[in-house]
Amino acid sequence: MESLKRIPHIEEFKDELHGIFDESRVNKSYLTRAEQETKRSKVVPSLEEAIRLSGLKDGMTISFHHHFRNGDYVVNMVMDTIARMGIKHLTLAASSLIDIHKPLIGHIRNGVVSRIETSGIRGGLGEAISHGLMETPVIFRSHGGRAAAIESGELKIDVAFLGAPSCDVFGNANGYSRDNDKGVTCGSIGYAKMDAQYADKVVIITDNIVPYPNVPFGIPENDVDYIVKVDAIGDSQGIMSGATRYTKNPKELMIAETASEVIEASGLFKEGFSIQMGSGGASLAVARFLREKMLRENIRASFALGGITGQIVELFQEGLVKKILDVQSFDLDAANSLKNNRMHQQISASYYASPNNVGSACNQLDFVILSALEVDVAFNVNVLVGSDGVIRGAIGGHQDTAAGAAISIITCPLTRGRIATVVDKVNCKVTPGSTVDVVVTDQGVAVNPSRPELRQRLIDAGIHVVDIQELRHKAERIVGHPLPIQYTDQIVGIVTYRDGSVIDLVRGVKEMDED
Amino acid sequence: MESLKRIPHIEEFKDELHGIFDESRVNKSYLTRAEQETKRSKVVPSLEEAIRLSGLKDGMTISFHHHFRNGDYVVNMVMDTIARMGIKHLTLAASSLIDIHKPLIGHIRNGVVSRIETSGIRGGLGEAISHGLMETPVIFRSHGGRAAAIESGELKIDVAFLGAPSCDVFGNANGYSRDNDKGVTCGSIGYAKMDAQYADKVVIITDNIVPYPNVPFGIPENDVDYIVKVDAIGDSQGIMSGATRYTKNPKELMIAETASEVIEASGLFKEGFSIQMGSGGASLAVARFLREKMLRENIRASFALGGITGQIVELFQEGLVKKILDVQSFDLDAANSLKNNRMHQQISASYYASPNNVGSACNQLDFVILSALEVDVAFNVNVLVGSDGVIRGAIGGHQDTAAGAAISIITCPLTRGRIATVVDKVNCKVTPGSTVDVVVTDQGVAVNPSRPELRQRLIDAGIHVVDIQELRHKAERIVGHPLPIQYTDQIVGIVTYRDGSVIDLVRGVKEMDED
Repeated sequence: MESLKRIPHIEEFKDELHGIFDESRVNKSYLTRAEQETKRSKVVPSLEEAIRLSGLKDGMTISFHHHFRNGDYVVNMVMDTIARMGIKHLTLAASSLIDIHKPLIGHIRNGVVSRIETSGIRGGLGEAISHGLMETPVIFRSHGGRAAAIESGELKIDVAFLGAPSCDVFGNANGYSRDNDKGVTCGSIGYAKMDAQYADKVVIITDNIVPYPNVPFGIPENDVDYIVKVDAIGDSQGIMSGATRYTKNPKELMIAETASEVIEASGLFKEGFSIQMGSGGASLAVARFLREKMLRENIRASFALGGITGQIVELFQEGLVKKILDVQSFDLDAANSLKNNRMHQQISASYYASPNNVGSACNQLDFVILSALEVDVAFNVNVLVGSDGVIRGAIGGHQDTAAGAAISIITCPLTRGRIATVVDKVNCKVTPGSTVDVVVTDQGVAVNPSRPELRQRLIDAGIHVVDIQELRHKAERIVGHPLPIQYTDQIVGIVTYRDGSVIDLVRGVKEMDED
Repeated sequence: MESLKRIPHIEEFKDELHGIFDESRVNKSYLTRAEQETKRSKVVPSLEEAIRLSGLKDGMTISFHHHFRNGDYVVNMVMDTIARMGIKHLTLAASSLIDIHKPLIGHIRNGVVSRIETSGIRGGLGEAISHGLMETPVIFRSHGGRAAAIESGELKIDVAFLGAPSCDVFGNANGYSRDNDKGVTCGSIGYAKMDAQYADKVVIITDNIVPYPNVPFGIPENDVDYIVKVDAIGDSQGIMSGATRYTKNPKELMIAETASEVIEASGLFKEGFSIQMGSGGASLAVARFLREKMLRENIRASFALGGITGQIVELFQEGLVKKILDVQSFDLDAANSLKNNRMHQQISASYYASPNNVGSACNQLDFVILSALEVDVAFNVNVLVGSDGVIRGAIGGHQDTAAGAAISIITCPLTRGRIATVVDKVNCKVTPGSTVDVVVTDQGVAVNPSRPELRQRLIDAGIHVVDIQELRHKAERIVGHPLPIQYTDQIVGIVTYRDGSVIDLVRGVKEMDED
């Protein structure tokens, strides 16, 4: 009786069919809702028990999200427990890794973690990896590239460990709670939605068990296997960091104002336009200048996308942005808006940026404002490797939105301290120049030669348009030529493009005293 | 380079890795948001074109949802087109079929449709099938059973044709529109979410293309392949039928009042209880009587589940119900609440009632109020086959909620006209008696002998509790013994239980003049 569909002439089987139903198989629940919560709960007594039940074994792949940013306790907590349990040679596939995850160094040294896949690495872990910590190079993927790799099965997750600021005992989980304010808050858990949907086993780690049903939910209960209640999943200060305050840096403000002028002059600043703005200083400040222009010209955006900040929410509340698509909430104002506004929608990483769907939200962007560690004269952008060659950044949605947006705008100062931002060749090619349209610096605006019509529009609007080579020369005049970075032969990172192909390799760097 | 993960020592491959990235593969979009909508739209010129593109072939399985109820134009429109295109021998897997789908008779006769899977069939199609129209019996599944069959692959859908009251050109679809009131409205599209997620190809049929992004969405764009814009997808009168007006039938009101007394006396009527009420006369009227009790006792429900009506929404607005889980909206008040209230959540059929998840919402019910065509002395319930043996009902969530709820309450009159509702043996066993706890009639309340403590509580509360045999005798005394139905040998329907096993077979009925 495997499939009734396959029985063309049921008559032949009627004797078999009779009596197939076995009353004793009926699973009637006599439990009240309150009893369900205690007797059928997915909450297990400890993280160790959840790991044991998940069937985690040597060599498997585990995953994490980075919605708690530098306030995350989950990665270290889980890895310490796994290490104690003696499980080894794991692949750790995080949506991103940050300074707080530095203790991973010990787990790599001890053979608990053999491989890493991530969007980026910041802090001490990046330093260590750049100095040769890992035998196998780290695989870097964009947010959209990671979503596609999970969907295609290239990145197969055995067990996902997902921190959640609220969860009921059956697994409906979210980045905030409608029931109480006991837990921390992170707003959208859009990256974690992928892991929850595709991982073989899903463990939710929460500090806030709320009454069923935890509605609305970011992760539905049917994606969840086990739940662990812990005292703390993160530090609210680190989760909602100060990244989204307006900059007071005059250079950044000037760049932001110029970027808003580029938008206005571009020809696409029209009723119903769409935009993504990052959380970096200049990128974020664009919102302020754009607001004035939107009010003056009576133009409203159809939607804002991406990592969402309070600045976007303000535009939304003023009616200047009609809808918000939120894969990641950068501050409490964004999280609260997601919680309370019907038109502020939580989306998955796939919905945000998958390269496999023409309708991916990033493809619907008129404008994206992005930052850069380096831009070179071919418009290639590096957001991953510092000027010293050390891994200290993240691809994030950079590749995805640059490719998807009609106009991608990089905002960066021409120089940072004694270091040029506009260079001859980026240390690490992350976002290909062919997807970068405009570079806005404090010393002028460069337009990709492939966009002559856009260049002309900006000139017509009186914007200080210069050749990218001119920016490069200017930067060189200011800071001179640095000594080349001393790389080792070891490949420590593989940078993938969003389609899964390899766009660049990251080499190890020599110790200062090695030379 | 299929999987970078599989390369343990990337060094060996470094020559291969270099140059893997091909700049010409970069797919930069220069399209504005407005241009995207025209140039990359999934909207195809005609239904025929969508069918052609879907790759539909003889013998495949197609699916539909029934959220438009008896106002649905989609099934007939699609089937007429498929018939014109000459495609044959299809399996039609609908979430349910109603009187308006009577034209399917012609398509079955002509060999376009060879098999049907559905929750139920009403009207002329049911008549015809009961009289031997189809060679292969219809497979009936509950809403939860269908969800499980789709998830397990037992019901494999090749092409889903899903009507949607709003859809943007990339496929974000919903049962209402936040942008305009041009289309019809059906509220939740919870059953269709399964088809959208699991079908190989998904075609959305809409009368209302709205601006991107259609947020919030019931079906995300990444589940959608093609979109067809038609003049009309349904008749709003038929979609939101009068089913949910309060009954004025005194017998139904009396039954409803008694059912509410059963709830109050059950011992589970406590702060935070949960409930599902159907849209039938007595079942629906329970809401009115329960409201008074909730106000009097100062008791609030944690959530209401299921097909949602304006009556539930009123309780929600008064603060008597905290959250609503909505798989199907029965009226405009329900649809509007879903549109506007953050705590009114659209859920899928799997979330609602899958037998494979301990946390399925139906398992969290304290009470469900259900109706019945027949109940027998073993508490088995028939909601599928009429007293004349003809298919004229639907399993719906009956099996699922009866099994899941701590207390399942069947409301029905003892007799309907000259026909007994309480019988010796149901014509068709749909919901097993072991999952039915209480039967409330206008002539007394029967409690399943397996629940002696519940029976005692009702007696203590002064409720007129009688033996089910006594109800049967009373019914017999009123309407006498009808002549037995004359069945044929043909099996016309296979009734599955929610776990996929066969619980009963439906035989053909003889024509009146055959005898």
